[in-house]
Amino acid sequence: MSGKEKIDVVQNIYDENERIALETKASLEKYGIFVINVMGAPGAGKTSSIINMVKSLPEEKIYVLEGDIESDIDTVKLKELGIDTIQINTNGACHLDAPTIQSYSQKLAINKPGILFIENIGNLVCPAEFQIGEHIKMLICSATEGSDKPYKYPLAFEKADIILLTKCDLKTYVDFDDEFFVKGVRSLNKTVPIFEVNAKTGQGFLEISEWLKSEKTII
Amino acid sequence: MSGKEKIDVVQNIYDENERIALETKASLEKYGIFVINVMGAPGAGKTSSIINMVKSLPEEKIYVLEGDIESDIDTVKLKELGIDTIQINTNGACHLDAPTIQSYSQKLAINKPGILFIENIGNLVCPAEFQIGEHIKMLICSATEGSDKPYKYPLAFEKADIILLTKCDLKTYVDFDDEFFVKGVRSLNKTVPIFEVNAKTGQGFLEISEWLKSEKTII
Repeated sequence: MSGKEKIDVVQNIYDENERIALETKASLEKYGIFVINVMGAPGAGKTSSIINMVKSLPEEKIYVLEGDIESDIDTVKLKELGIDTIQINTNGACHLDAPTIQSYSQKLAINKPGILFIENIGNLVCPAEFQIGEHIKMLICSATEGSDKPYKYPLAFEKADIILLTKCDLKTYVDFDDEFFVKGVRSLNKTVPIFEVNAKTGQGFLEISEWLKSEKTII
Repeated sequence: MSGKEKIDVVQNIYDENERIALETKASLEKYGIFVINVMGAPGAGKTSSIINMVKSLPEEKIYVLEGDIESDIDTVKLKELGIDTIQINTNGACHLDAPTIQSYSQKLAINKPGILFIENIGNLVCPAEFQIGEHIKMLICSATEGSDKPYKYPLAFEKADIILLTKCDLKTYVDFDDEFFVKGVRSLNKTVPIFEVNAKTGQGFLEISEWLKSEKTII
């Protein structure tokens, strides 16, 4: 293949992914499902945050598609809490894509309008490049990763509609620099709300549930 | 392209990457350079660990190729400490590949045998798939990411020649389960040594420098 042909192939993959993502979003919207693409690095606290959001939204029906390269550790955890969860194993792939989500979303036993959390693969790079049918992208970033992350992984911060800063109880142990972090986020994204949370105590999640309820009215 | 053609293209990219990686390794070996591919999730402590290894190896000449999607934050930090460092910005790409390292390794002002640390992009998935010219792969994993990481990101653990478990002072705050972590690693990799470290105090790095000195004799 020539360079030009390669670029065409990549562009076609992106275009086709976006087309399928919009199709999935429209189809879930018909059922009254608000879709959240949950992204973040490995160990950022994506599953713990989902559990806290479920608890702080008791009136909402919640569905979860749980993305992992391998294992079903988080799905077992979510199901034990009574949350309707389907495991997606990508067997090596570094992000979820729209065809995968279109296929798995058809397996959801949707019996009520509500919220679908799609937990993406733990990766602060690749997931940000692909729409999967979401209404909003939620970026989970832990304080223990350090305050320089917006500067090093700009796309995820640029595309985020909401940022949860987790493990805030550990800020002092890792010399987390609040001002530097916020400055980095704002240089990429002027309006995204940043919520500080502690998934162990649940601190900060009531505010997030209020924000989500108001966002959800767009569908 | 048909499915078969797509698979051929991907296989060709892997094969070509491996060929160039072996070429780079052989060429650096002629200068007496031992190459370490430093991998880990965002914020795992890759740069802090490199700094501690440099300090605990005062008799070794150290070179660093510093991979980041964007920014030169870590290169500035390393240069301030007098470490010969060249920044590589991938501008979006999620891992370093062999052609990139071949090109940048030719820019190193090698005046003495020693050790080259190549800090890969912060990503626990994609870097593990690509050789870049290394003698060994070093996996940096922080305790704050949680003890389930080997189960969720097996390839990086399977391929690692040495694992550094960083931020061990924070284990108790995140309910890190040592037994579960080690069991996960051992199910993938029977022999890889696991060193527990604290990059803030330097604890654990003397043992690593001894291990590296003995490994280095293979070249």
